[in-house]
Amino acid sequence: MNPAPLTDFSKLCIHTMTTKPWDIETAMDKYAEAGIGGITVWRQWLEGQNIEKIGDDLRARNLEIVSLCRGGFFPSATKAGLDAAIEDNQKAILEAAELGAPLIVLVCGAIPGQSLENSRGQIIDGICKILPLAEEHNIKLAIEPLHPVYADDRSAINTMASANEVCDKIDHDLLGIALDVYHVWWDPELKKQIEITARANRLFAFHICDWMTPTADLLNDRGLMGEGCINIPEIRALVEANGFQGFNEVEIFSNRWWSEDQGKFLSDIKNAYLNHC
Amino acid sequence: MNPAPLTDFSKLCIHTMTTKPWDIETAMDKYAEAGIGGITVWRQWLEGQNIEKIGDDLRARNLEIVSLCRGGFFPSATKAGLDAAIEDNQKAILEAAELGAPLIVLVCGAIPGQSLENSRGQIIDGICKILPLAEEHNIKLAIEPLHPVYADDRSAINTMASANEVCDKIDHDLLGIALDVYHVWWDPELKKQIEITARANRLFAFHICDWMTPTADLLNDRGLMGEGCINIPEIRALVEANGFQGFNEVEIFSNRWWSEDQGKFLSDIKNAYLNHC
Repeated sequence: MNPAPLTDFSKLCIHTMTTKPWDIETAMDKYAEAGIGGITVWRQWLEGQNIEKIGDDLRARNLEIVSLCRGGFFPSATKAGLDAAIEDNQKAILEAAELGAPLIVLVCGAIPGQSLENSRGQIIDGICKILPLAEEHNIKLAIEPLHPVYADDRSAINTMASANEVCDKIDHDLLGIALDVYHVWWDPELKKQIEITARANRLFAFHICDWMTPTADLLNDRGLMGEGCINIPEIRALVEANGFQGFNEVEIFSNRWWSEDQGKFLSDIKNAYLNHC
Repeated sequence: MNPAPLTDFSKLCIHTMTTKPWDIETAMDKYAEAGIGGITVWRQWLEGQNIEKIGDDLRARNLEIVSLCRGGFFPSATKAGLDAAIEDNQKAILEAAELGAPLIVLVCGAIPGQSLENSRGQIIDGICKILPLAEEHNIKLAIEPLHPVYADDRSAINTMASANEVCDKIDHDLLGIALDVYHVWWDPELKKQIEITARANRLFAFHICDWMTPTADLLNDRGLMGEGCINIPEIRALVEANGFQGFNEVEIFSNRWWSEDQGKFLSDIKNAYLNHC
């Protein structure tokens, strides 16, 4: 299945983490100059900054603020840890509101040695506790199922099916799913689960990058689209056939790319976007 | 759920790959001295050897030959590659027969850039082509679903559900599944899929080790039982509650452990077996 080719950058969004060496001012100027349509801001880029002003500056450059990354990490072995996670997620909601981001991506969390089932319970509790503040500010929350390789310490939600199950249990219009091809490309149930997600109107975000063979570093060796084995056009076709009209968000963590000239990288991202997505 | 505690080594099997620095003669002497019940032989240990004699030597030491590792790697982009894989798997069947191993473990294979669906088709074709020879020698074949982190280049079968689907399609008494806790511990469907596997009388093997946090090397940083986050007793309880009575096979690939004294490692394995399985 081939999707309509991408011919411009109006639906291209870049995560500030993708061009990690750039601070927020540089990133917004460079993305705008390059004609990129959207930006997803990682919270580290907002630390100690005037967040409202950054929101204004982004809008002044015609960069649509797609989402804030990231909330989550709900599980903890202690009550204090659980409370701290709620507090941090509430802070993220306020930051999203100040910035003007309509959505927060949730990397839900996991703790080595605690059962994934227990962690999922804590995740559900945590999301329920932050939803009232999200309602107040009309901020959507998107669970990003993480690849099972991160089930030990980053997320107990490792498939679209599992994310859909959590969404079903909580059943709230502001709660949905962020699909990142890196995490779900291998799943034999992907088509079916995208359909379920879309039918429930909860496919909130679509992240792209590629899977390198071999993968030199489990966290920071993602590939530029086209460098790896993920059939991105096929997955984009699936989400679009199911009604998704949002941004294609480039989220690449890569020690290799971060060590390159970021202007060259941005130009390579644009080429890869047109040719391999 | 707690299983009956393990109090002796009669159901402990060790893979020759676990004590990689030892050649086959050393491994069989050391395992026998340590009172280990079974051995799974990797094919590299048989290269250039008199395989029948090794089988006799193992039996003379009261080591039950649990399986031969490994066949599989069926997918290929070329006809020649597909044919070569069949030939190699037929060779493995003859080796298993010579050795006196009742079972071959299949790591089914995948090719970066070829769709997993296509690879699964080639895997099914390949298994069907080698089954006649397996019948002739009464050798069982066990599909080992591999963790999704290996979906790019090692196996297109990444869940118990997917392995069960392939077994359903081929539907042959000699074809079943090898469950390795390393590959499936994260799966929310694990309990359900173990039940399906057991009901179909196809749970042929049970492999144990642990998942390290962080994992320094994707292939060769498995942990000794108890070092990581996998709840091995819980999974053993599940397979035993479903009728599994086979060996608990210790299969640890670890640069760290391979660099230690292997006699000490074997003793640590025995302790971990009694205390963390």
